Amino acid sequence: MSDIRFDVLGIGNAIVDVLSRAEDDFLVREGLIKGSMRLIDAEEAERLYDHMGPAKEISGGSAGNTIAAIAGLGARAAYFGKVADDHLGKSFAHDIHAVGVHFETRPLLRIAPDHAPTARSMILVTPDGERTMNTFLGACTHLGPDDIDPAIVAASEIVYLEGYLWDPPAAKEAFRKASQIAHAHGRRVALTLSDSFCVDRWRGEFLDLMRSGVVDLVFANQTEIKALYETADLDAGVAALRADVALAAVTLSDEGSMVVTPDDVVRVAAAPVAAVVDTTGAGDLYAAGFLFGLSRGFDHVACAELGGLLAAEIIGHVGARSQTDLVDLARQAGFPM
Amino acid sequence: MSDIRFDVLGIGNAIVDVLSRAEDDFLVREGLIKGSMRLIDAEEAERLYDHMGPAKEISGGSAGNTIAAIAGLGARAAYFGKVADDHLGKSFAHDIHAVGVHFETRPLLRIAPDHAPTARSMILVTPDGERTMNTFLGACTHLGPDDIDPAIVAASEIVYLEGYLWDPPAAKEAFRKASQIAHAHGRRVALTLSDSFCVDRWRGEFLDLMRSGVVDLVFANQTEIKALYETADLDAGVAALRADVALAAVTLSDEGSMVVTPDDVVRVAAAPVAAVVDTTGAGDLYAAGFLFGLSRGFDHVACAELGGLLAAEIIGHVGARSQTDLVDLARQAGFPM
Repeated sequence: MSDIRFDVLGIGNAIVDVLSRAEDDFLVREGLIKGSMRLIDAEEAERLYDHMGPAKEISGGSAGNTIAAIAGLGARAAYFGKVADDHLGKSFAHDIHAVGVHFETRPLLRIAPDHAPTARSMILVTPDGERTMNTFLGACTHLGPDDIDPAIVAASEIVYLEGYLWDPPAAKEAFRKASQIAHAHGRRVALTLSDSFCVDRWRGEFLDLMRSGVVDLVFANQTEIKALYETADLDAGVAALRADVALAAVTLSDEGSMVVTPDDVVRVAAAPVAAVVDTTGAGDLYAAGFLFGLSRGFDHVACAELGGLLAAEIIGHVGARSQTDLVDLARQAGFPM
Repeated sequence: MSDIRFDVLGIGNAIVDVLSRAEDDFLVREGLIKGSMRLIDAEEAERLYDHMGPAKEISGGSAGNTIAAIAGLGARAAYFGKVADDHLGKSFAHDIHAVGVHFETRPLLRIAPDHAPTARSMILVTPDGERTMNTFLGACTHLGPDDIDPAIVAASEIVYLEGYLWDPPAAKEAFRKASQIAHAHGRRVALTLSDSFCVDRWRGEFLDLMRSGVVDLVFANQTEIKALYETADLDAGVAALRADVALAAVTLSDEGSMVVTPDDVVRVAAAPVAAVVDTTGAGDLYAAGFLFGLSRGFDHVACAELGGLLAAEIIGHVGARSQTDLVDLARQAGFPM
């Protein structure tokens, strides 16, 4: 019997999404770049909220979405992320517990000297289904190395980290600590590059994480790969990527994805999508399917196919947390669940 | 130029919906009656929340949903309802303001001696799209006659009241005060019967409101009409209804609705529905279309048709607040908007 208690541990910014429909001209008026994620402070969060339309609140956070879906597929999953002891923090904890994820990170207390509320991302969904994110990190900036429970890291087959963690400074240390413990116990460490602007902010450090072996597996979309290698040529980016990491999965929107290793690049077609309602979480759910597949010993193509299947499901409705039975979905598509 | 500033004023329980998918056997295990609304206390709210699955939070409240949709159709709308000064209260206010509704009811302050949080309704949506509601009224129990701004009531062509208002005692007084002011200014007063169990609780008083002319117009579904007149025979119920109120709209699920007057009963077919995802708010949106039509001078059949169109839209997605452009929807269906 193995001593592994968790298939995947995710570490990320614990965020509740505040999703609202918006027209393109709203983005223009507000000076927002469609499809991007920008960080905002409390004041701007309030200002934008006042301007935006009626909203739905659904738990989010990139790694949180991934981990919730991995649990939904029936794997053993754990999550570290910092919420506050407020309504949104309780909602976040409820939602991730309700799908069976181990989540015990201590919330930031209201009496803390530098209290901040639970993070929220105001996500504007345009008629084309594209999402533009405005994130107030709040309590997430308090995630630090003390929140990394070594026993959980040691007990997790794969540790999955958000590139977004590189924004709140203390989280970097948490990230490095988790990677160290994981590797000391022979585990694998995965990183998602998260967003091309995030890559722009941290290009050198991300490349260093890959080249120094702090991470073993990278998730990225084509824009992020181009940003990482500062090239307009995806093939050139992928060629560079092959030299920098043992395994990468690169998503290509409606053209599917590529599995990249030092030896090989394999293309996998996208799953069919009836209607693109909201692309929020598409990358997160792709990572969920891929990581679940890895934990079950699927070959890389099957991992990418399961990722594509989950991504296709999530973009058919609003929000990045599915209320669909993912085991059924995967089983009907022929995966051995 | 008329002195009317608002087409419709809604008064109701200001509630945020906490929507989650559930299987039928969950309802059975929890002893819940599918399709009903039950009132629960804070303790039961917490217990049930712990048991239920991941949730989405979307502003709700029956009259709140109706008024938000009326504003979405381009009418001038106002709302009275009691929230607390907490996260859910701020979300509720944001969402109703964002669609242009006048909403200035003073929130219940945290320092109030008998403070209660903003109301929430835990709504379990079964695979057939039916919703089962578990409502913790919280701050709503504090809505009273002082919250009825006479100038707004006097300035509203139609005042629309929830039957659910009959549950928190102070709201009854608020309701009667609003009706009195409205009638003193030659306005019309509408009531929705809300729920068959609500009708069971308040049958005598509801009939009295109708027969004494406190309300001029009634919305109900077929189950509520049967409950009101304690009959299994809808036609017998409708015959009794004709003697009790000047105008009623009775919804019949997928069979459309009936417009009932002392002189006549007219059947109107339902609008087509692609897939029933979540019936939450179907009755509220029907009332919105009907009331909007009345305020625009549509004939009764057109009012019922617009109600049916909006009801069909809302059951195609999760939650009772539409993010669709309702003016476009109505215009495409041929209504003069």
